[in-house]
Amino acid sequence: MGGDRAPREIVAGALLARDELGIDVLLVGPDDGTLGDTRGLPVLDAREVIAMDEDPARSVRTKKDSSLVRCAEAVRDEQASAMVSAGNTGAAMASALLRMGRISGVARPAIATPLPVYGAHPSILIDAGANAECTADWLLQFAQMATAYVRARYAIANPSVALLSIGEEPTKGNTLVKESHELFARTEGVNFIGNVEGRDLLLGKADIIVTDGFTGNVALKSLEGAAATFNSMLRSAVNSSLSSRIAGLMLKPALATYVKSVDPENTGGAMLLGVEGVCIISHGSSSARAIKNAISAAHEMVSHGLVEQVRSAIGSPSGSKPQFGK
Amino acid sequence: MGGDRAPREIVAGALLARDELGIDVLLVGPDDGTLGDTRGLPVLDAREVIAMDEDPARSVRTKKDSSLVRCAEAVRDEQASAMVSAGNTGAAMASALLRMGRISGVARPAIATPLPVYGAHPSILIDAGANAECTADWLLQFAQMATAYVRARYAIANPSVALLSIGEEPTKGNTLVKESHELFARTEGVNFIGNVEGRDLLLGKADIIVTDGFTGNVALKSLEGAAATFNSMLRSAVNSSLSSRIAGLMLKPALATYVKSVDPENTGGAMLLGVEGVCIISHGSSSARAIKNAISAAHEMVSHGLVEQVRSAIGSPSGSKPQFGK
Repeated sequence: MGGDRAPREIVAGALLARDELGIDVLLVGPDDGTLGDTRGLPVLDAREVIAMDEDPARSVRTKKDSSLVRCAEAVRDEQASAMVSAGNTGAAMASALLRMGRISGVARPAIATPLPVYGAHPSILIDAGANAECTADWLLQFAQMATAYVRARYAIANPSVALLSIGEEPTKGNTLVKESHELFARTEGVNFIGNVEGRDLLLGKADIIVTDGFTGNVALKSLEGAAATFNSMLRSAVNSSLSSRIAGLMLKPALATYVKSVDPENTGGAMLLGVEGVCIISHGSSSARAIKNAISAAHEMVSHGLVEQVRSAIGSPSGSKPQFGK
Repeated sequence: MGGDRAPREIVAGALLARDELGIDVLLVGPDDGTLGDTRGLPVLDAREVIAMDEDPARSVRTKKDSSLVRCAEAVRDEQASAMVSAGNTGAAMASALLRMGRISGVARPAIATPLPVYGAHPSILIDAGANAECTADWLLQFAQMATAYVRARYAIANPSVALLSIGEEPTKGNTLVKESHELFARTEGVNFIGNVEGRDLLLGKADIIVTDGFTGNVALKSLEGAAATFNSMLRSAVNSSLSSRIAGLMLKPALATYVKSVDPENTGGAMLLGVEGVCIISHGSSSARAIKNAISAAHEMVSHGLVEQVRSAIGSPSGSKPQFGK
């Protein structure tokens, strides 16, 4: 298991998922006592560690006894129904892709990340970083896979799809966006509503916001960076004097309601769509609560048959053999 | 003149610039009384209006009597030393490009936008939206032009330059970023420090952050969107009860110090670099104060000979004839 706060928060999150939600959890990591007291949770032994900054593809090839590789194998071998990790995002993706395999017909798996929207279900940003360079055809598949996902996850029958661009007009954007705009508009089964801009990302203008993995990752991290800056400014202001500290205490309950509704820890983490299994990649800084919510989302998606639904959304024959490798 | 709050805030900003800073301002707009009392400021008559949502290139071609076109012509004809607009960004850019002309040797003018950094001078994001598709050579020129600009604007002798990417390693990013990384690293005169990510944009990690205009625009608007969401959450929390309102009043002075230091209204607006004149494009929602600060920045850049310095930074022969058109 990985993540900045592993193993403590991960094990604690797994225990919350078992005790509060009744979900069977299999821990994957070193079975040598370093995980602490797992209170009866089974451990699948994996002695190697892929660090947060290691090269994804290489580390997955060379570290066959890492928790990420063993975890993806457990899903492949039906020892587990889904994979949840807060470790190295690229390595988690590579493990899932190489060990579970791609769904037949999927050009490229993509990361579907929930963007919190105040007072509503999150919007799904896809691709949030799996593919730095994309074609319009891939973007269309991202839209189709995300449509299946949002249907299963938020029970929205006909989720709206938008393209992330630099203007609402179809003529705005780079070549990829303009080509995709045309392709989306004439493709049935995709409820395309046009372009949205960066400033719309948190407003819930579309259920699904499609972009290439480079732009998606920059946008997501820009939002995270802005949130961190505001948070630290607010804290500094509160701590700047006695009266500010009192004001902070008075304001806290009201602010907490809002913050809670947009806290990424509650949204269940990012979903890797297009692989032969449910795979959730949580933020590296995930707390026990975030891990519990990710396990809960994974459990729910398995019950809804997400993989089968993604398969059918992209028009892949049902039950086809997984296609391994890249 | 344009902008969401024109003409009132624009005229008021021009008056502040004259009365507080002693800068001569020429207003460009309809000289028929609709500007209100300009208190002695001269008006260059321009009767057409390019709306915020009009197609930039077409509107500049067809509306020859628009304030944007007349304003750019005033700089070309040396009636004015610089142009400041809060109108349609694309049309302001097109007017400057078509009427003032490009600096000889500049492949593409680009928008240099200040990103506020708490407790420090802003970082300059270039290109923030002028060119949706770019080559590595263009990005290098953006870096060179921004280096000249930051030197003149913030008196930093050797400003640091970073590329916006999705990981710090040189191998991370799309083809454009990887090619640019290599090119920047072997180019003298550019103080290249490597890649930064979206989450670093407000941290002042580099004086200059270079990216293509599509990514830059998405990143900038993502930051703006996050700021707006945070602002509205804080307001709602403060207004949710009597005690919250009191807490809000108590916290306001401390918070104001922080907010002021990162308020885009104080940074003077975005600079269009690469044209034969100083051209500042302010946010559409600019207040009188934002306009005053933009005029002040424009004035300062004229005094520092910004155009000449950009010319020399890209190795263009000094005093060469402007190249018109695209």
